Amino acid sequence: MKILILNGPNLNKLGERDPEVYGSDTLEDIINELMADFPQHQFESYQSNVEGDIINVIQETKVDAIVLNLGGYSHTSVAIRDALEPITIPKVEVHISNIHAREEFRQHSITGEVVDGIITGFGKYSYKLGIMAAEQLKLTR
Amino acid sequence: MKILILNGPNLNKLGERDPEVYGSDTLEDIINELMADFPQHQFESYQSNVEGDIINVIQETKVDAIVLNLGGYSHTSVAIRDALEPITIPKVEVHISNIHAREEFRQHSITGEVVDGIITGFGKYSYKLGIMAAEQLKLTR
Amino acid sequence: MKILILNGPNLNKLGERDPEVYGSDTLEDIINELMADFPQHQFESYQSNVEGDIINVIQETKVDAIVLNLGGYSHTSVAIRDALEPITIPKVEVHISNIHAREEFRQHSITGEVVDGIITGFGKYSYKLGIMAAEQLKLTR
Amino acid sequence: MKILILNGPNLNKLGERDPEVYGSDTLEDIINELMADFPQHQFESYQSNVEGDIINVIQETKVDAIVLNLGGYSHTSVAIRDALEPITIPKVEVHISNIHAREEFRQHSITGEVVDGIITGFGKYSYKLGIMAAEQLKLTR
Amino acid sequence: MKILILNGPNLNKLGERDPEVYGSDTLEDIINELMADFPQHQFESYQSNVEGDIINVIQETKVDAIVLNLGGYSHTSVAIRDALEPITIPKVEVHISNIHAREEFRQHSITGEVVDGIITGFGKYSYKLGIMAAEQLKLTR
Amino acid sequence: MKILILNGPNLNKLGERDPEVYGSDTLEDIINELMADFPQHQFESYQSNVEGDIINVIQETKVDAIVLNLGGYSHTSVAIRDALEPITIPKVEVHISNIHAREEFRQHSITGEVVDGIITGFGKYSYKLGIMAAEQLKLTR
Amino acid sequence: MKILILNGPNLNKLGERDPEVYGSDTLEDIINELMADFPQHQFESYQSNVEGDIINVIQETKVDAIVLNLGGYSHTSVAIRDALEPITIPKVEVHISNIHAREEFRQHSITGEVVDGIITGFGKYSYKLGIMAAEQLKLTR
Amino acid sequence: MKILILNGPNLNKLGERDPEVYGSDTLEDIINELMADFPQHQFESYQSNVEGDIINVIQETKVDAIVLNLGGYSHTSVAIRDALEPITIPKVEVHISNIHAREEFRQHSITGEVVDGIITGFGKYSYKLGIMAAEQLKLTR
Amino acid sequence: MKILILNGPNLNKLGERDPEVYGSDTLEDIINELMADFPQHQFESYQSNVEGDIINVIQETKVDAIVLNLGGYSHTSVAIRDALEPITIPKVEVHISNIHAREEFRQHSITGEVVDGIITGFGKYSYKLGIMAAEQLKLTR
Amino acid sequence: MKILILNGPNLNKLGERDPEVYGSDTLEDIINELMADFPQHQFESYQSNVEGDIINVIQETKVDAIVLNLGGYSHTSVAIRDALEPITIPKVEVHISNIHAREEFRQHSITGEVVDGIITGFGKYSYKLGIMAAEQLKLTR
Amino acid sequence: MKILILNGPNLNKLGERDPEVYGSDTLEDIINELMADFPQHQFESYQSNVEGDIINVIQETKVDAIVLNLGGYSHTSVAIRDALEPITIPKVEVHISNIHAREEFRQHSITGEVVDGIITGFGKYSYKLGIMAAEQLKLTR
Amino acid sequence: MKILILNGPNLNKLGERDPEVYGSDTLEDIINELMADFPQHQFESYQSNVEGDIINVIQETKVDAIVLNLGGYSHTSVAIRDALEPITIPKVEVHISNIHAREEFRQHSITGEVVDGIITGFGKYSYKLGIMAAEQLKLTR
Repeated sequence: MKILILNGPNLNKLGERDPEVYGSDTLEDIINELMADFPQHQFESYQSNVEGDIINVIQETKVDAIVLNLGGYSHTSVAIRDALEPITIPKVEVHISNIHAREEFRQHSITGEVVDGIITGFGKYSYKLGIMAAEQLKLTR
Repeated sequence: MKILILNGPNLNKLGERDPEVYGSDTLEDIINELMADFPQHQFESYQSNVEGDIINVIQETKVDAIVLNLGGYSHTSVAIRDALEPITIPKVEVHISNIHAREEFRQHSITGEVVDGIITGFGKYSYKLGIMAAEQLKLTR
Repeated sequence: MKILILNGPNLNKLGERDPEVYGSDTLEDIINELMADFPQHQFESYQSNVEGDIINVIQETKVDAIVLNLGGYSHTSVAIRDALEPITIPKVEVHISNIHAREEFRQHSITGEVVDGIITGFGKYSYKLGIMAAEQLKLTR
Repeated sequence: MKILILNGPNLNKLGERDPEVYGSDTLEDIINELMADFPQHQFESYQSNVEGDIINVIQETKVDAIVLNLGGYSHTSVAIRDALEPITIPKVEVHISNIHAREEFRQHSITGEVVDGIITGFGKYSYKLGIMAAEQLKLTR
Repeated sequence: MKILILNGPNLNKLGERDPEVYGSDTLEDIINELMADFPQHQFESYQSNVEGDIINVIQETKVDAIVLNLGGYSHTSVAIRDALEPITIPKVEVHISNIHAREEFRQHSITGEVVDGIITGFGKYSYKLGIMAAEQLKLTR
Repeated sequence: MKILILNGPNLNKLGERDPEVYGSDTLEDIINELMADFPQHQFESYQSNVEGDIINVIQETKVDAIVLNLGGYSHTSVAIRDALEPITIPKVEVHISNIHAREEFRQHSITGEVVDGIITGFGKYSYKLGIMAAEQLKLTR
Repeated sequence: MKILILNGPNLNKLGERDPEVYGSDTLEDIINELMADFPQHQFESYQSNVEGDIINVIQETKVDAIVLNLGGYSHTSVAIRDALEPITIPKVEVHISNIHAREEFRQHSITGEVVDGIITGFGKYSYKLGIMAAEQLKLTR
Repeated sequence: MKILILNGPNLNKLGERDPEVYGSDTLEDIINELMADFPQHQFESYQSNVEGDIINVIQETKVDAIVLNLGGYSHTSVAIRDALEPITIPKVEVHISNIHAREEFRQHSITGEVVDGIITGFGKYSYKLGIMAAEQLKLTR
Repeated sequence: MKILILNGPNLNKLGERDPEVYGSDTLEDIINELMADFPQHQFESYQSNVEGDIINVIQETKVDAIVLNLGGYSHTSVAIRDALEPITIPKVEVHISNIHAREEFRQHSITGEVVDGIITGFGKYSYKLGIMAAEQLKLTR
Repeated sequence: MKILILNGPNLNKLGERDPEVYGSDTLEDIINELMADFPQHQFESYQSNVEGDIINVIQETKVDAIVLNLGGYSHTSVAIRDALEPITIPKVEVHISNIHAREEFRQHSITGEVVDGIITGFGKYSYKLGIMAAEQLKLTR
Repeated sequence: MKILILNGPNLNKLGERDPEVYGSDTLEDIINELMADFPQHQFESYQSNVEGDIINVIQETKVDAIVLNLGGYSHTSVAIRDALEPITIPKVEVHISNIHAREEFRQHSITGEVVDGIITGFGKYSYKLGIMAAEQLKLTR
Repeated sequence: MKILILNGPNLNKLGERDPEVYGSDTLEDIINELMADFPQHQFESYQSNVEGDIINVIQETKVDAIVLNLGGYSHTSVAIRDALEPITIPKVEVHISNIHAREEFRQHSITGEVVDGIITGFGKYSYKLGIMAAEQLKLTR
């Protein structure tokens, strides 16, 4: 299975800032770990701080599943929501921290309305669970 | 008259997705049809998924009128609203589907506060009506 | 095509009041202009300040399309909304001024939830665009 | 007992529109059925789409009980509410569909604040239950 | 001065209902009393329960001032508000009871946004004060 | 027909408290009266103050129709709503007092969103009307 | 009759600021004019910018009626509202401008909930109407 | 590791109702499958429709981790939230359907504020992912 | 005097969790201390996590006064509110922490609307003050 | 212990107005009774209708504890809240009536967010309970 | 230039409370420092906890510019807002802490609607910046 | 000190549009003036209309302080807010116009929650004050 790991704004700074909250692994570390843990899959990784670039990638990708962490755009971007909606491959949204336990404006994910499911609160392990969820969604389609 | 047809996020996917809702014409088909129907005008067409690029185009354009469909950004972008406000040429906002009949977060257009008028709900024909509206606005200035 | 031009409260005063906002044409002028511009269609024109009369007309009309400007009732009348909903001929709502640029209580049209589309902000020309929109809706049914 | 069956906007269209929702009986069919089922009562039937006419009828009626279905006016008319409030005969509000299962703006009835009780969701049978309720209210006064 | 006393829904029932709240005078008594107290003015009196009829009267009246009590329509009618707005003669809104001391939905008057002033809470004497206010407004124009 | 009369919290106190509001009949009196009035049906009666017990009864009942008065849980219990939703037999919600004339937090019934219809405001007679409504619903399925 | 004319914050600046809105008369001019127009009454005049001083005056006054214009405190002071509530002499609230036509935070008067009536929008003449209203209230007690 | 699988109201009906939404597996099937898939763990399973019983179980359990699906109580129970908060073992909330894509009153989980993380939308597989998440949380404590 | 000390969900865990917030005394310690401090009264103590059980106890109790701490149910239970309302013995609600200084959803107590008074924020001493308040209420009835 | 009894606006009128609500004791009676009941403490009493004076007293007082009843300012004064916040002696807010059972704008106390605890609803006895609460708070610091 | 430094409630306590938030300088220290830093200007300093006194000072001052920190009154006082509005000299509002980073009720300043500009978050240095801003405003008038 | 002057959407149009509101200086003029006025500092200037580009610059910049004017993104961008939050150098937000005196959606700055302070309303001079504020913040760290 070919899986796109799509990360949104500020996730390129993982590992550098707030390590006690977000852990000390960088995004690259996480991707490498995923590649080691799931040798049976092929990964593409894309991170951007630009809302429109993320839409472009969603529109053009040719993968079998997407695991995405859209950061701040999860809560504000109607445009990314519209880009995700028609995609029919498995779509799993992940968050490193538990969004239900944070500021009120982070508790609802409008992109989350159009994905298959959401995994939130398990640190970098949210990505690993996201891939396992994508595998399962693939099986049942 | 030189007219800019400006399209926002996800409109590059017209014709591919939800054809029963948005029709089977692509954005290119629509532009071609407009050029055929209005040979007396000169058209520029620009589509982008990037909010800031749309602002750039609005700031730099040298046309006589704009017909714009800003997709998801109509409902969230204060910045595009601010870019449109000082433009004094005819500005017509169009929507393919009737935004008053959709989700609550799509019923108000904040960019719509600063255009001359809005045409919503007539499929691809909304663009054609938009050009006719722009012609009329031009006459009365 | 037989088209009903249906106008709601205060539109019988067009041309008399606020000419710099609403223009100096009377409703009769507008209807005459429409008849001149669209000789291929047959027009019926009805204006009333009475909510129930408007419902009666909507229920009894035998036309092929309706172009309607419901004035203040657009924002308050659940009953007109219920009368319009089952009508299956083309229904186009028009407004002379841009309702998205006015007071907050004018920004949402509850009758607009049940028409095919809305055209707002182009002065008397909104009616002309409304007829062209109705023609197009007729073709695609 | 003399009973007024008072119907508001669009109920004159019963049987014609949305038959799978509202049933195929016309308002006349329903009134006839009520007269057949309750030969011991005398009925007056009035339907109007005009808010003020309904107020006139409520003010002038000389019956022993009212069963009323005010349609869209239930949710918006302070004026009908004010007309109903001082009436001391049994007042039963009925709705054909279950208003608690519909759009949010239909869930509260402001006229319902000043009647004795409400029956909602049982199709044309709501009227029959309404008459039985009125009989009972009459007994206990 | 020629003054229109315009009364809205349910005010034809003055004197009959809730006499401890609204007093035992009928609307006719009040009008007669006004004519006796202000012999120098000429009065027209109009009452209707029909929203559209009130709009008609406002549009067609040829008086020098209006004193109006719109009852329940004060709080809901955008259409009457739009009819009153362009009228340039003195416009005084009166209420028999103090609307600021009643239910929340009666505390704001949307027609009150477009009149010169409002007098509320002084029983039938509100009308008399309304005429004196209209006299004064006439003097200062 | 086998009918379950299901009563929620505090309804075991009927007849004891607030007799001028709720009447002096106990719940047992009401059930007995229903059995006398409808000898053709077989009744099961269940009352509980415990939210989960009510869910248990709804899940396990084998009757042909339910007439239910959920008291305070009507306005707060998502869990009872979820238990009622899949039940396909006639479901009639009744209230002794008129919930639309009471505190705002009692005006919407969330369990009422998933029943067939609601009868509110007719004292103990609401139950009798509820059974008649259930009979009718049974006929039309 | 002994009447207290009680003015709140900033009304000592009448005549100096915004003369096109509030007129060119000073508060002293207005009081003098009232004394000239109503020689049959005895006036006390008090103005203060201090919320607590106004409460003190309300508590200690020995007059027969109060005409008050509380300025900005009308919209924010629960404490003045509580001081006014137990006073049983005629209480008339006046405003120079029409508060229903101004910013939303000026449209409701919380002190207005506990006075007999309100007169708003007639310039300095609002005070004169206020005294006439107080006379009338006195008569009917 | 000893793991409690705790299920709330209506989950005992899994497999019976709405199989196209919730799947055709019963809760017992799911537990059996979990026991087969994770032979290294010891499971306790508890389901109840009674809010207080669930609180009791949370307070008294002696397991190493909890995977819980609280159904309708997730959105309304402050009391279960308070019971969960002081528990320091891994707590994973799961939902079979994607709560962000459902009715607004299901989009926020108040119990979700006090668990480690949430997994929502992957059908019965949400439980499996929940156990893997609990394993991981155990490792990092 | 016979006094019921009624405690709601999670209060059986007092002393065990968050001792720096709730103190290290268990509920039993508190009850014992109350019995020592007030030997002149007879105490009944009841704690439950089950909403319906609390309603049952309130309905059946034969005491002279109730001191109650309903925990999370104070803020959500319409059903307990309904059970408390008709009870005419002294009812004192107590909270260990200051609910006005906590999360917004804890600031209003809906059960508090129907008790005599509330004491909040004094740790276990709130119970002692509650008994003294109940003594006083008893005297003045 | 030296205790300040601090009373806000309108409390100087205790005993005079609404005796059936607030009792017939004056503020002086209450203070005298407190001095008689608690001879071991030294009291200072201060009442003012002026918001700023109350702030002055809070800032300058040298007592060991404050028992305060801020009347209408409890619900509106951010400035008194800011004055109270840094005070570290025991602070007990009392209300004579039960604020949770009154108008919505009286249900939340913003000064109550920064005191130790609140006692509300026990008439003049609220003050006595307030002193006992202050004693207890003193002991545990 | 003659400059008024106007401080509202609780600012006389600067330096004493919360020194880690507000700094250890007293208001006097700050004024002295300003006089030392800006020897070219003449300063008047006024602080009051009384809302009405602040209005008095604003009305009577004869300075060339005002730098004001209104503390809690910034968020609640319509009356101070009305006093400030007609003043045409430079008006600069300053706050010691960043109001946008604090409680929601501190994020909007209603007095800030009628000043020239606001400086918030720079500790005592906010005053210094305020004077420099006032200098600049003076130059450009 | 090395200072980044970071400008968001539409600020490249300064000087061209609305000169009576925003002044006739271009952004370049302002930067040049700042360089002339503060020769002791080294400046970097960056302007972009693209939300993600601004995030990139914030993440990568190596300066000692940031003065930023984010235009419309101040009110909508959670993503820029997240990028700014971990930056520990002095961060000063400036606005040319007074955001508290403009449309409601411009009154709160969500990026302003995570900067040190905000300066709003002083025209181009806001930037100069911003640099002086940054100097001061630098000194006190």
